[in-house]
Amino acid sequence: KRPAPVTFLTHAMSSQWNVRPSDCAMRTMNPIRALVDMMDLRPNPDLPLIRLSIGDPTVFGNLLPPAQATLALVEEAVTYKSNGYAPSTGYAHARRAIAEKFSHANAPLTEQDIVIASGCSGALELCIAVLANPGDNLLLPAPGFSLYQTIAQSRNIECKHYALQQDRSWEVDIADLESKIDEKTRAIVVTNPSNPCGSVFSKEHILDILAVAKKHCIPIIADEIYADMVFKSQEFHALAPLSPDVPVLSCGGLAKRYVVPGWRLGWIAIHDRHGIFGEAIRDGLTRLSQIVLGANSVVQAAVPRILKDTPQSYYDGLMSILETNAKRCYEILKTAPGLKPVMPQGAMYMLVGIEILNFPEFSDDRVFTEKLINEQSVFCLPAQVFQAPNFFRIVTTLPEGETVEAMNRIVAFCKKHYKPSA
Amino acid sequence: KRPAPVTFLTHAMSSQWNVRPSDCAMRTMNPIRALVDMMDLRPNPDLPLIRLSIGDPTVFGNLLPPAQATLALVEEAVTYKSNGYAPSTGYAHARRAIAEKFSHANAPLTEQDIVIASGCSGALELCIAVLANPGDNLLLPAPGFSLYQTIAQSRNIECKHYALQQDRSWEVDIADLESKIDEKTRAIVVTNPSNPCGSVFSKEHILDILAVAKKHCIPIIADEIYADMVFKSQEFHALAPLSPDVPVLSCGGLAKRYVVPGWRLGWIAIHDRHGIFGEAIRDGLTRLSQIVLGANSVVQAAVPRILKDTPQSYYDGLMSILETNAKRCYEILKTAPGLKPVMPQGAMYMLVGIEILNFPEFSDDRVFTEKLINEQSVFCLPAQVFQAPNFFRIVTTLPEGETVEAMNRIVAFCKKHYKPSA
Ligand SMILES: Cc1ncc(COP(=O)(O)O)c(C=O)c1O
Ligand SMILES: Cc1ncc(COP(=O)(O)O)c(C=O)c1O
Repeated sequence: KRPAPVTFLTHAMSSQWNVRPSDCAMRTMNPIRALVDMMDLRPNPDLPLIRLSIGDPTVFGNLLPPAQATLALVEEAVTYKSNGYAPSTGYAHARRAIAEKFSHANAPLTEQDIVIASGCSGALELCIAVLANPGDNLLLPAPGFSLYQTIAQSRNIECKHYALQQDRSWEVDIADLESKIDEKTRAIVVTNPSNPCGSVFSKEHILDILAVAKKHCIPIIADEIYADMVFKSQEFHALAPLSPDVPVLSCGGLAKRYVVPGWRLGWIAIHDRHGIFGEAIRDGLTRLSQIVLGANSVVQAAVPRILKDTPQSYYDGLMSILETNAKRCYEILKTAPGLKPVMPQGAMYMLVGIEILNFPEFSDDRVFTEKLINEQSVFCLPAQVFQAPNFFRIVTTLPEGETVEAMNRIVAFCKKHYKPSA
Repeated sequence: KRPAPVTFLTHAMSSQWNVRPSDCAMRTMNPIRALVDMMDLRPNPDLPLIRLSIGDPTVFGNLLPPAQATLALVEEAVTYKSNGYAPSTGYAHARRAIAEKFSHANAPLTEQDIVIASGCSGALELCIAVLANPGDNLLLPAPGFSLYQTIAQSRNIECKHYALQQDRSWEVDIADLESKIDEKTRAIVVTNPSNPCGSVFSKEHILDILAVAKKHCIPIIADEIYADMVFKSQEFHALAPLSPDVPVLSCGGLAKRYVVPGWRLGWIAIHDRHGIFGEAIRDGLTRLSQIVLGANSVVQAAVPRILKDTPQSYYDGLMSILETNAKRCYEILKTAPGLKPVMPQGAMYMLVGIEILNFPEFSDDRVFTEKLINEQSVFCLPAQVFQAPNFFRIVTTLPEGETVEAMNRIVAFCKKHYKPSA
């Protein structure tokens, strides 16, 4: 293939306005926004709109941050001590507090191992940017959170998806994962607990994933923003402590567990017990962090108190609400003809399968959810944006009244449109 | 030139840990950090260290944010209303307040024209990322703020520098600027008032710059983070209102004027009266903003009150301190043999020329400042990091006592090392 001929513009020729967005800007795409913008959304004016679409626990006002978090923020603000530039990787005392909170006997952390970023999103961006070049690839879960792909595409990094298994509580299909690895794979992204699945991996399952990573020498980016957000019968296992050798960048943040996504406080915990990441990756993360200087300094200063002072009862209360809600949704949706809700084990989401052949009016999850909003004023996200076609995702953070009302409307909608198989 | 041969690694061969930072991470470089890390800094233990190096107005505790800003932040925090995700370009009411504050009869703004970002740094990154592809170039001022280059290099965008003229209060050398434009030039970055120069451009001078941009059809990125921070005899002219047609992305933020750099609240004001940027550039900015979701929501919610409630006396007081300090520094440094301070007209910096041939012990500004810290415990930034070799930059934000003490030590240092020309 020969290179395209080069055209030399003369000054005279170029002197017209010719301002175009960069390729990077055009590649950068939030698939949720892109799809929602394309949808024909006209909620039924006779019914109040209920949005089950947004992964923001604050929007309904029923879930509040711990009082300790707001208090810490306010008290740090009025000391006037933390209004200045923090180091690009974050204040040392904030990093120390995060290291202490997430340190584990098998995976110890010091403040040197923490990089504070603008939300877990910022942390993920740093991790992806430091590990992969254009043309390299990342392995992403399907269904999975769409931001990984947004970041990767923006940087011309390829995405390959490995399957999670619906009938096995969304565990990874290990053979599929392994088959997707090639010589350009730079990291495996593991989301646990999962958005959009609400799944929580067992220790054994995490060990199986780690075995693949170890065998093929691929580092893991563990998105653990929902760490510890698991239902009563479940246990959360952080990924890094289960491996003595796989290098892991674990991403977390305050957004979900402390119900403050707007505060934009996230972090990376670097687990690298055998120096595989080494100074080079740490240095790369530091360099990348210098461009924008992540997180708000007052929030950073409040982090030690937020992590230490929030009482266990707060965490328990939040999870109890989320679990009660999830069960409520599951029980009602189970009665809807043509739906297959998958009961979550944690986080704040549920995926609901649509037996699309039994809804002959609707070609896919997009059309299904479009009609659902237009008839019933209930907005669920079509899960094709999470690589889960013919599912929709609901959030389980709404107050009981709205939740039950929304579920009943979904059932009514299904009853109306369901056609039994011939 | 033939392509390099492609090596296909077999799976077996690749199964060793081989984790390297990406090219992007390695290209990303803060020249200030890189140089300071290389310097041999051993402050004289007999003298307290005075840092004139950091452009953070909060570090000495003498300059505080307006009480209204902290109050607004605290009051927004305790309403619990702004803890959720803001739209990726910012809350509408915050954007509206910024639009109102910076709207001008000749360059009107609405909330649609504002993109909120993580600091002015985040705003600059969005602007550069949306306008330039790898291989394109930006025209940057020399001397100039180093972040533009950090962002550009990280994205493989080329930097070309145009000269500011020391003997003309750091005005742009218009002929030099024009000569640097080529068919790959995507934007001219104009910093006014300037870091590191402390210069403030006249209306006529801005019109000269705009004429070049118009003639060659190159949009302008106006870094106006120091907007309105000018000394008594000066007037600040925003760039966009002076042009009826050049499309301008004007970047600003709370960092300097409100003495809260850690809050990370910046913005872009899109000035595009003839639709040259058009929907495409706006859409590109929105897309890019979706990756990390810029600024803290509580600070965003406080923006309207910060901009409206801060009394004029606060701004006046801050500028009076900065001007008094700048004069104080200038008057003392003028007496130092071998130094040529350039009196600033605004912002919070001064560049000081070193007649390096009269300091035969020191080969350049780096060695000069290194020895200055080691003998006198005064830390000034060697201005080669700002493309101003044989200058150093001082900040004018210190309390009077430290300022005078530091200046006197610099004078003593020069007296000791100055050698008159033969
Ligand atoms: C799996 C996952 N990772 C990361 C994020 C982003 O978190 P943050 O708001 O801290 O950027 C989210 C938010 O929904 C998420 O679901
Ligand atoms: C000229 C200039 N632009 C932008 C910035 C960055 O501002 P922010 O702290 O809001 O990112 C600075 C900070 O020193 C600056 O001097």
